[in-house]
Amino acid sequence: MKTIVLNNRPEGKPTLSNFEFVEVDKTLNISEGEILLETAYVSVDPYLRGRMSDAKSYVPPFKLNQPVHSGVVAKVLESKNEKFKVGDYVSGMLNWSTQQVSDGEGLNKVDPEKAPLSTYLGVLGMTGLTAYLGLTEIGKPNKGETIVVSGAAGAVGSVVGQIAKILGLRVIGIAGTDEKIEMLKSKFGFDEGINYNTTKDMKSAIAEAAPNGVDVYFDNVGGPISDAVLFSINQFARIIICGAISVYNETELPTSLSVQPFLVKNSALMQGFIVSNYAEKFPEAIQKLAGWLNEGKLTYTETIVDGFDNIPQAFIDLFEGKNKGKMIVKI
Amino acid sequence: MKTIVLNNRPEGKPTLSNFEFVEVDKTLNISEGEILLETAYVSVDPYLRGRMSDAKSYVPPFKLNQPVHSGVVAKVLESKNEKFKVGDYVSGMLNWSTQQVSDGEGLNKVDPEKAPLSTYLGVLGMTGLTAYLGLTEIGKPNKGETIVVSGAAGAVGSVVGQIAKILGLRVIGIAGTDEKIEMLKSKFGFDEGINYNTTKDMKSAIAEAAPNGVDVYFDNVGGPISDAVLFSINQFARIIICGAISVYNETELPTSLSVQPFLVKNSALMQGFIVSNYAEKFPEAIQKLAGWLNEGKLTYTETIVDGFDNIPQAFIDLFEGKNKGKMIVKI
Repeated sequence: MKTIVLNNRPEGKPTLSNFEFVEVDKTLNISEGEILLETAYVSVDPYLRGRMSDAKSYVPPFKLNQPVHSGVVAKVLESKNEKFKVGDYVSGMLNWSTQQVSDGEGLNKVDPEKAPLSTYLGVLGMTGLTAYLGLTEIGKPNKGETIVVSGAAGAVGSVVGQIAKILGLRVIGIAGTDEKIEMLKSKFGFDEGINYNTTKDMKSAIAEAAPNGVDVYFDNVGGPISDAVLFSINQFARIIICGAISVYNETELPTSLSVQPFLVKNSALMQGFIVSNYAEKFPEAIQKLAGWLNEGKLTYTETIVDGFDNIPQAFIDLFEGKNKGKMIVKI
Repeated sequence: MKTIVLNNRPEGKPTLSNFEFVEVDKTLNISEGEILLETAYVSVDPYLRGRMSDAKSYVPPFKLNQPVHSGVVAKVLESKNEKFKVGDYVSGMLNWSTQQVSDGEGLNKVDPEKAPLSTYLGVLGMTGLTAYLGLTEIGKPNKGETIVVSGAAGAVGSVVGQIAKILGLRVIGIAGTDEKIEMLKSKFGFDEGINYNTTKDMKSAIAEAAPNGVDVYFDNVGGPISDAVLFSINQFARIIICGAISVYNETELPTSLSVQPFLVKNSALMQGFIVSNYAEKFPEAIQKLAGWLNEGKLTYTETIVDGFDNIPQAFIDLFEGKNKGKMIVKI
């Protein structure tokens, strides 16, 4: 049985040396009420970077020399818990371990017949929930409005853009390669795409792509890209702060354009979004997402990396934008 | 009849040369439906600085060589409008003129028997409405929570703090002189006051004054003071961006700490507040404010400057913090 623990806290960009593989040569035994799980798929996500620091945050930081955990799909190998039987698949927050014991708390059964197992970590999991609930609960989108999505080719961003199209918005995506921009338009149906790596004047490019201004900005990145969007926001604009991947690795507190004058001028709203605050809306949201998926209105991209040993590198690669869509490791 | 027009647009801090006095030696005549007004009190407010620039904003900029206007209380000298009779007092957005003609649109009668006329520009006017509606509509304060108010000794800030006390919050005010801090505590009942001019480490001072963290931040100033507050915000904090006096005079776009990581970490909200968006709530709000005023629960401070010719200087003095409470010019 192998486990990945946090060896030391990253300073700036995470590196392989922040992680350590611990191998234990023993059979895991389960007690009454427990199940033995074999990991099938592991989700690696930018937000995990925050938990690797020991700064105050909405979730406690990972402990040093303890297993890292994230969204995982696992198979039940043994069960002494009546809710789960051998062969079931479950999803939930679990350790980066090849096998582990659980009491079943917080785990949900997932059905490999209904959708590929990896989607329960993506479009039907936290990714899809984040996209749908962030957009609808904070963004409150109206038909005919314009939305800008940063990190648009990422797991959350690509789903946000598709849902916004379903809801009748003009959708502009920002991403970092021409290939990603092409994918936004051809695969996900975005109206416009802006490559921030080849665009010198982002402010003008956004203004041009959004001739009626920006009503909703779904912000996955922060930093200078988000500064540029501010110049185009409309009165009563809603800005969903879903992530700030551009600054997660900063060792100094980042500075940027003061947002306050833009917000007051436009009576605009900016709100931090964390999906776990909306747990009571998950069932309704998953139903919506599964419906759109079955109707073929929603598609997704995954980058699947093979092998347990590649989990840390897959996580590190997120910050280089090496993923398209949801980054998942298949064990 | 004298009028003050915008001579040229301020670059940075406004100066007397931005304004010109135009004297017209003629009798104003009114037509059917109109009234002739004599200005009694003029409100000078930081937000007017925004209208003196020609940048995109929620209200169109003042035109060059046209009268500046703001909140005014005036006396009806002649009337051909059945809604107003000679001797009535009205309040509304009117020109910086000693006399002017109006069709009565947007003017409200005010009663000098019920409250001093100047209060209709202050605690019972836009100032009080801004404080009450900004605090309740965006701040959504709950008993037992902690609020920080910047620009606390200003017109809006001092009312915000008092309402927050009435609603059962712990109230911390930030202001720029020891005299103002003393006034916040002794006159307005704030629990704590922080002098940003004599406090080296604002971040620690705020953390100390708010041992349970900050749930609501009523931001009148922006800039480094607001940066320092971010370190103490609680989960689900609400930040009302009511003004940004610290940056109104900046000629370059100001930068500050990136707020996005703080907002996402704390699921916090930041929203620009402009009182005119809440016009349908004015009657209810004025009733509340008048009630508290009569019960002696709400008090106010005015800085009253004498003489029409001193309007521009009174406006300029706002940016030096020379006012305590609402700055009003008595004609």
